[in-house]
Amino acid sequence: MMNVPLTVQSLLERAERFFPKKEVISRTHTKVQRLTYREIGERTRRLAAALTDLGVKRGGRVGTLAWNHHRHLEAYFAAPGIGAINHTINIRLSKEHISYIINHAEDDVLLFDEDLLPIVSEIAHELISVKAFVIMTDQETLPEVDFSPLYSYEELLKAGTPDTQFLQDIDENETAGMCYTSATTGNPKGVQYSHRGLVLHSFALGLADTVGVSESDVIMPVVPMFHVNAWGLPFAATWFGATQVLPGPQFNSKLIAEFIDEYRVTKTAGVPTIWLGLLQELEAGNYDTSSLVTILCGGSAAPRSLIKTYEYTYKIPFRHLYGMTETTPLALLSNLKSYQTGLSEEEILDIRSKQGIIVPGLEMKIVGSEGDVEWNGRDMGELMLKGNWITDSYYKDERTNDAFKEGWLLTGDIATIDEEGNVKLVDRTKDLIKSGGEWISSVDLENALMAHEAVFEASVVAVPHAQWQERPVGCVVLKPEYKGKVTEEEIKAFIAPQFAKWWLPDHILFLDEIPKTSVGKFLKLKLRDIVQEQLMKG
Amino acid sequence: MMNVPLTVQSLLERAERFFPKKEVISRTHTKVQRLTYREIGERTRRLAAALTDLGVKRGGRVGTLAWNHHRHLEAYFAAPGIGAINHTINIRLSKEHISYIINHAEDDVLLFDEDLLPIVSEIAHELISVKAFVIMTDQETLPEVDFSPLYSYEELLKAGTPDTQFLQDIDENETAGMCYTSATTGNPKGVQYSHRGLVLHSFALGLADTVGVSESDVIMPVVPMFHVNAWGLPFAATWFGATQVLPGPQFNSKLIAEFIDEYRVTKTAGVPTIWLGLLQELEAGNYDTSSLVTILCGGSAAPRSLIKTYEYTYKIPFRHLYGMTETTPLALLSNLKSYQTGLSEEEILDIRSKQGIIVPGLEMKIVGSEGDVEWNGRDMGELMLKGNWITDSYYKDERTNDAFKEGWLLTGDIATIDEEGNVKLVDRTKDLIKSGGEWISSVDLENALMAHEAVFEASVVAVPHAQWQERPVGCVVLKPEYKGKVTEEEIKAFIAPQFAKWWLPDHILFLDEIPKTSVGKFLKLKLRDIVQEQLMKG
Repeated sequence: MMNVPLTVQSLLERAERFFPKKEVISRTHTKVQRLTYREIGERTRRLAAALTDLGVKRGGRVGTLAWNHHRHLEAYFAAPGIGAINHTINIRLSKEHISYIINHAEDDVLLFDEDLLPIVSEIAHELISVKAFVIMTDQETLPEVDFSPLYSYEELLKAGTPDTQFLQDIDENETAGMCYTSATTGNPKGVQYSHRGLVLHSFALGLADTVGVSESDVIMPVVPMFHVNAWGLPFAATWFGATQVLPGPQFNSKLIAEFIDEYRVTKTAGVPTIWLGLLQELEAGNYDTSSLVTILCGGSAAPRSLIKTYEYTYKIPFRHLYGMTETTPLALLSNLKSYQTGLSEEEILDIRSKQGIIVPGLEMKIVGSEGDVEWNGRDMGELMLKGNWITDSYYKDERTNDAFKEGWLLTGDIATIDEEGNVKLVDRTKDLIKSGGEWISSVDLENALMAHEAVFEASVVAVPHAQWQERPVGCVVLKPEYKGKVTEEEIKAFIAPQFAKWWLPDHILFLDEIPKTSVGKFLKLKLRDIVQEQLMKG
Repeated sequence: MMNVPLTVQSLLERAERFFPKKEVISRTHTKVQRLTYREIGERTRRLAAALTDLGVKRGGRVGTLAWNHHRHLEAYFAAPGIGAINHTINIRLSKEHISYIINHAEDDVLLFDEDLLPIVSEIAHELISVKAFVIMTDQETLPEVDFSPLYSYEELLKAGTPDTQFLQDIDENETAGMCYTSATTGNPKGVQYSHRGLVLHSFALGLADTVGVSESDVIMPVVPMFHVNAWGLPFAATWFGATQVLPGPQFNSKLIAEFIDEYRVTKTAGVPTIWLGLLQELEAGNYDTSSLVTILCGGSAAPRSLIKTYEYTYKIPFRHLYGMTETTPLALLSNLKSYQTGLSEEEILDIRSKQGIIVPGLEMKIVGSEGDVEWNGRDMGELMLKGNWITDSYYKDERTNDAFKEGWLLTGDIATIDEEGNVKLVDRTKDLIKSGGEWISSVDLENALMAHEAVFEASVVAVPHAQWQERPVGCVVLKPEYKGKVTEEEIKAFIAPQFAKWWLPDHILFLDEIPKTSVGKFLKLKLRDIVQEQLMKG
């Protein structure tokens, strides 16, 4: 057999050749545009030439700090197209973390959205490797800034040649993309995506039994393109010639509902918070959602009631998927088997509430204290994953040592598996808080709280939240001499400068002690109960 | 990213773990059996152990001379499972060619069906490398034969251990399968399939935009498992947990119709002859074909009238695919784009009559005398293919030198490509008719002839001509009820409006049958001889 490298550029090349008339509908800061794949292809080639001119070399990194729109899509293909790496940066991280990430990845160029200029302005002087800043703007004039050099994305494209050839001699194991993920403690950890992994992941997304991405689809990733490849949908949708709807910056539930209605979206993807919000909007407004054939929900477990409402009230198929930054991300997908379609509504919801079955191409096991757990839906163990779109390391990071075992990724998720092979997450080995699909590290918050001179000890736990699933609450034991002399607001103000706003605990509770295990670790399960009780009391 | 080898055994392992209850419905010489994937898995592991005991080593070859049934399916996985090669042999070849193939491939073991014993008996003494003959039989006693050693498949399985582990340290570029293809002249040529190629091909078959093989499918490959992996369906169907219906030895149209009806077949695959035959059966009998969602038709171009009848009279989606032994085989598949569904019936049939668009994962080009042809649906050139499931050589065969050019496979098929990227075969490089310096497509003439209501099948060949070099002659087989009731002039008049005058065949000959190759393609070499003979007679 021939051995032809699996490359990211081949995905776009197929769209250019076979689906040149199909469109990407892109909302930017000022308007909604329609661009054909012929245009996207040409613009991507211009961008590839421009990046080369800016000094990006093979293996170099192009950082993006951007929402979901066509320019971001072009960056997804342009960097790999010249053998470089498309490095998406999570815009919701703290400035410190964003700065750390860019320096750690040694980004050569930073592409950023105009509404994110304030972040870039604040950190630009700290960025060691960045040789060029490129603002993705619809405006014709550049803003005044105190860093340089600053380029206009569209001006760069005008200068680039539209018939630039993508690199053909790529080794499929070379890195094409990169994304950092929040860690339990310390700085975010970098995950690298190979050409091979991204192409195989795209195959997986096209399978009839997973997402079945098709030319006839209109796909709207609400999940951000700055986080885990927007679940790989931009790659797969492009390859198979689907129409893409990219909802752009600062969208809200109303816009999501309108776009579904107006553009006849067939498949959309996002975290539970998005679908909770959309539900409120659908109930309030008058939208036609009949085009929808799948809502993909991941990031954290969707409440059963949410699944039920979409499936049975709105008749919109609602599918759990599970993955993480380390897994590109598609790993598990909840699907009924053909012999299960006659089950009762409640039995079907039981299945749909689980994270599902490992997708073709990956391997999984769940390992408890006595080895692989039984497939009985009760025994718990840690979910471990292996396969071509699972990372094998963190980029230049010692924490790699703790994350893998005998070739398997330790997900840190505790799960059960039933007799049909459906995995259900039951807990996390570490105490991360998942708010609106993003992770908040309780340990980082605890460390910050404990740095206050009045604090004896502090622990942070997650409490359920209607809109964000989970929100952090801080529990503080004050030193005796400070009791009654420090307010909740003072503590919050103390830690505020260190974190993104949405990381900050909703409440700080003052307790007399924090329950602990026999070895002195915080007993978070018990603490959560105490917190719930206190919050109920008001 | 991890780099985990793509292996054939991983496909079966997934079926064993996640679809153990799903079934393979297998017709053998004496009965129809149902086996679950759990049973198929266990039996395959027993077979793998037995093959090792018979002396098959890594890289060794296991020949199969067999119809479509569960034992053949087990062989598909058992040989690759121990690092050996599953070598399927076309039972319809001449004994000389079968003997050549087994010796050329140096098969260590030969598995064969009981009704093919006469073939094996005749050639056994010529087979140099074969160390063991294994008869795939339902009988408890072995037949009397004059070669040895002869084993019973089921007895070997009883002796093999059911928990045999498949080899895990396979390099994905190792060979897993092998099949010989007839050459225009000389002995058949061997094509080797790598683990990587077969897994990627299975991914391609699962895509929503190709065959979309799914757990919910009931898949019946009528195309033989002894030829080009039964179009890869046994691998994909197993991987995705589909129900498989294997129609066994010496089937006919009635049995195919009955199986579709009884087992609620959703997808089936075969050459046009099969579907012509089925159509007669459906017209005669009373069958429920409402379960069918796709008929896949390949091997040669289906007449437009056949496509039309299935699509519009029977409401069964009928899809052309194109491939060859060298391409595993899926290469092209005819699909409408989403913006074409509103076209007229005739326009849609125009598209469906073409071979279609290259599937994701492969590359194609059509090269004429002046380089890549224009995408105008008129300019002709040779179809060339590249990708991970395209062979890069013929096994130990000098003819490799003529079959490839700069990394591309020369298919020998002359094609056009339209502005949407749909490829249409117009002839073989060897079957084009050159009249007065201009090309005439025998395929277009054949399609026109087959659209006549009296015509069962038709083929057009070139005969030498003093003035024009070559002229076309049509060979027509009439449906039984029309025999003797249609004249040459009526047929000519029927097709005349569709072609330039000089394209029209000089003669129409009525034959009782058209000679075919072992895989159901028109045998034009032989047909030319018949035509010459008939024309001489006057």
